[in-house]
Amino acid sequence: MTKQQLFEQIRKKQSFLCVGLDTDMKKIPEHLLESEDPLYEFNKAIIDATAPYCVAYKLNLAFYESNGSTGWFSFEKTVAYIKQRYPEQFIIADAKRGDIGSTSERYAGAFFSTVKTDAVTVAPYMGADSVKPFLSYPQKWIILLALTSNEGAYDFQFTEDKNGERLFEKVLRTSHSWATDEQIMYVVGATRGKLFEDVRKIIPDHFLLVPGVGAQGGSLEEVCRYGMNKICGLLVNSSRGIIYAGNSEDFASAAGEEACKLQQEMKEMLEKYL
Amino acid sequence: MTKQQLFEQIRKKQSFLCVGLDTDMKKIPEHLLESEDPLYEFNKAIIDATAPYCVAYKLNLAFYESNGSTGWFSFEKTVAYIKQRYPEQFIIADAKRGDIGSTSERYAGAFFSTVKTDAVTVAPYMGADSVKPFLSYPQKWIILLALTSNEGAYDFQFTEDKNGERLFEKVLRTSHSWATDEQIMYVVGATRGKLFEDVRKIIPDHFLLVPGVGAQGGSLEEVCRYGMNKICGLLVNSSRGIIYAGNSEDFASAAGEEACKLQQEMKEMLEKYL
Repeated sequence: MTKQQLFEQIRKKQSFLCVGLDTDMKKIPEHLLESEDPLYEFNKAIIDATAPYCVAYKLNLAFYESNGSTGWFSFEKTVAYIKQRYPEQFIIADAKRGDIGSTSERYAGAFFSTVKTDAVTVAPYMGADSVKPFLSYPQKWIILLALTSNEGAYDFQFTEDKNGERLFEKVLRTSHSWATDEQIMYVVGATRGKLFEDVRKIIPDHFLLVPGVGAQGGSLEEVCRYGMNKICGLLVNSSRGIIYAGNSEDFASAAGEEACKLQQEMKEMLEKYL
Repeated sequence: MTKQQLFEQIRKKQSFLCVGLDTDMKKIPEHLLESEDPLYEFNKAIIDATAPYCVAYKLNLAFYESNGSTGWFSFEKTVAYIKQRYPEQFIIADAKRGDIGSTSERYAGAFFSTVKTDAVTVAPYMGADSVKPFLSYPQKWIILLALTSNEGAYDFQFTEDKNGERLFEKVLRTSHSWATDEQIMYVVGATRGKLFEDVRKIIPDHFLLVPGVGAQGGSLEEVCRYGMNKICGLLVNSSRGIIYAGNSEDFASAAGEEACKLQQEMKEMLEKYL
């Protein structure tokens, strides 16, 4: 998917919502546990209920891997389901991978050739050659961790070098030269508020994947005020707040309602800031 | 496995070799491709041939994930095989994971409860709460990326802060307080030569996982001269140099010979530096 195509979806749906399929066997409604693949059944119902209100799905691999190869199979089937039924959706493997070049090539193959997601999140610590192998797939994206939403972000991401540049700024500035804004997005946590201004000084045109609205306490209003650019430039993720909105037989419609609420808020934000 | 038990294995076998099972479908001997699970068949033969000469196996997840859920199944079966046949071996999932706390918990569950490896490699960028969930499993280890063997390490890992501390040093110093040397090891690339001295100033007692000997050009002699401590404190990994030593029907015995050669070199190093 190109940047322009993604923006067109956002305009059409008046939404920049990404639904996070952090699907946890312990949290899905009891009546699904009897099915052959509870994770997949849960995901399908959530996807059908939320697809009108979102432009992207993000599958965090940790939740699938905690069920081993069976979980990986649920991950693959979910991606295939979205691609077949909702080909306009942007699909993100939230995997935070990264390794030496020849190994990162294998990860790129896993997500872009084998499973066929549109994007994969990548960790920057190992530098250029750990990231570049992901960039040789046309219309595929990497989403590089820059400034994460969690408390631990303060341990290293804010470390200032001799010139006063913080590590997350160095990651943005350095990686900026590795690829175009048609190949790379960045993770910036919704809890970072005004810091979105500093991020936008370095990368005014890139899309940002923004987790941390909802359960983690980030403000959608602040994210938009400081982070939205002229093509929106934001994919705001909500996981738990949507997918666990209900936990009985009506879980899917409860999820749809939550997604719809967020879409309405996003519509207002687009009218206000775009 | 405890640190002392690992050291006992090293003394007994006169080896601190870790065999890297970076098993690539494109590189395994043709006659295996007809079997039901070529990756697993290849791994079993390599393991049987190399087990007398090594104390650890490292499976890099990228090579398994590039075959999707089928590859993950080969990964699981390989770990189970090692645990059953060679319970004295230390098994590392080289996965370089890390996410916000509640998600890292799921990764910890994946590797320590579901697949049951002894250790998993973790990326430090997201800080303390991304690492700590891995630490609640008794006798399980995390191996944190500190100073990697690749060219891209220069992009961020050497960035100096205002006090002249390099990022890899900050990672060592900061993470040092999160856990004991019975819970955490560090990745330091074999290509870093004399820098092992700087690493040892901060973490004299920890074990280091050292990739990059062989194909990547690191020197075993230098690693030992600057990095060995009083309980050896090194697991030196070799992947391609061992597992692809042969590519015909005798591939396993060729791998065994290479592993044996490295074990002999390591025996000399232990006599010289321990």
